Amino acid sequence: MTKSTEPELWITEEHQGTVRLSFKVAQSLFSQKSSYQQVDVVETRGHGNMLLNDGVVMLCERDEFVYHEMIAHVPLFVHPSPRRVLIIGGGDGGTAREVLRHQGIEQVVMVEIDAMVVDACRRHLPSVSRALDDPRLELRIEDGVRYAAETDRRFDLVIVDSTDPVGPAAPLFNRDFYRNVARILEDDGILITQAESAHYDRELQKPMFGDQRGIFPRLHLYLYSNLTYPGGLWCFGFASKKYCPVKDFDPGRVDEAGIKTRYYNPGVHYGAFMLPNFVAEELAGVLDPIPGLSAK
Amino acid sequence: MTKSTEPELWITEEHQGTVRLSFKVAQSLFSQKSSYQQVDVVETRGHGNMLLNDGVVMLCERDEFVYHEMIAHVPLFVHPSPRRVLIIGGGDGGTAREVLRHQGIEQVVMVEIDAMVVDACRRHLPSVSRALDDPRLELRIEDGVRYAAETDRRFDLVIVDSTDPVGPAAPLFNRDFYRNVARILEDDGILITQAESAHYDRELQKPMFGDQRGIFPRLHLYLYSNLTYPGGLWCFGFASKKYCPVKDFDPGRVDEAGIKTRYYNPGVHYGAFMLPNFVAEELAGVLDPIPGLSAK
Repeated sequence: MTKSTEPELWITEEHQGTVRLSFKVAQSLFSQKSSYQQVDVVETRGHGNMLLNDGVVMLCERDEFVYHEMIAHVPLFVHPSPRRVLIIGGGDGGTAREVLRHQGIEQVVMVEIDAMVVDACRRHLPSVSRALDDPRLELRIEDGVRYAAETDRRFDLVIVDSTDPVGPAAPLFNRDFYRNVARILEDDGILITQAESAHYDRELQKPMFGDQRGIFPRLHLYLYSNLTYPGGLWCFGFASKKYCPVKDFDPGRVDEAGIKTRYYNPGVHYGAFMLPNFVAEELAGVLDPIPGLSAK
Repeated sequence: MTKSTEPELWITEEHQGTVRLSFKVAQSLFSQKSSYQQVDVVETRGHGNMLLNDGVVMLCERDEFVYHEMIAHVPLFVHPSPRRVLIIGGGDGGTAREVLRHQGIEQVVMVEIDAMVVDACRRHLPSVSRALDDPRLELRIEDGVRYAAETDRRFDLVIVDSTDPVGPAAPLFNRDFYRNVARILEDDGILITQAESAHYDRELQKPMFGDQRGIFPRLHLYLYSNLTYPGGLWCFGFASKKYCPVKDFDPGRVDEAGIKTRYYNPGVHYGAFMLPNFVAEELAGVLDPIPGLSAK
């Protein structure tokens, strides 16, 4: 029900020229152009505050927990003892927030290219950005591709929490970058990548995972549901030098950790790797097979 | 990329006043008002032909397989020997199509209230409606609520393939109807219900499953992803007099059946019942607990 006294403001994202997703807006909270992109935060009606980069919805308060829990807890509960994590992108702070909830984490290096995203989220998305002040977090405003090429540090987990592969994030989707990530990962390290839509982006996923093949012995895809991304069903890539995300996952560790989550749990973890046939078959050549499940 | 010579036609569905989903349209194929609702079929750009009832997207050719495989194969692979199935609604024919792919099915009774939906889909969605001519199908154009109250037949499976609980489908969401369904189900029968959005419709799901409680000893929810429904993550209800959809599911039967599916498989079946915490916790009082999973 719309009050007739309220102006009808909507923000609309168009995807591939065939589908549009619109959210009702109460007011604009932030709107500036950085060296890299247009950054907006709007207050919506019904979805909380919402971040958009170049007009593409990045997250909203209503369901950001889904994306951030799934990008962080899946690898952190597969790796038996993660201590050092590199986040490339993730300027809103939500991924860092979830990573830092794990007791064993000693250091998180977050390399975000665009200071304006961080500033906008600190001001208008505090429930997402609050972990940016954690003393275990080292925030670096610089190019993540260069950082991965040049750093001498080593990590148990690298998370590429990026926008779509156009504009500033494009160099995060190629073989040179993945080679550098493999170099800075420990021998049992894990790489998680934002891997776009399960319905709309197969032609992007094939070369993306093709570029990771040969570099990582295990290559998998897992699914989560995003309220504000076109089509709803979206993907993360799971690349590992050693661990299988299903066989090497110990659900008991989730209970022991005592981290209160709103989307993630052991059943969701297992289920996320069970790809529908239309996804699995089209990526059969670039992903590794995953073990089946049974009732406990 | 939009050709400048092409008119910009879009069809837009608004949900709860806060979100809109729009699809690019090439042309209208069917647009008439029945005694029950406005029925439209449009040819879209990118999503195939699309059915809308009262302006709400019902299905499109691009992803209708997800909905229809998940509403049909989940119960048909839990019940050990389903032979007689009642579909209430489902006028497009997609649910009947998937049910009839199971060799053991002897009869499907489909009770659709609106002949115009059937006619529109026969003409403009033949890949969905093609099973409507199967000799095992008895198509009845009448009120499903009255049919469930009055029939003397008994079924192994009842599928409520309905629109949202407003207009003609409203009486399908209440206790009297569920009692009648229980009456016409065999002692080991299963009821599947269209159960709306996992994100937007909790306040509808609580009374809906509340009304089923006490009538069915086992009450569960399972999830699937719909490309054209707001929020993407949608639900079916699984109510049973006897079977647990996880413990009593034998994945070997799926392989034996040899039915080629595009979304459904044993892993997807298990994963669909693994509810995210925000869903499970809010429905803890009305759903039964589900067993956990382990890697095979």
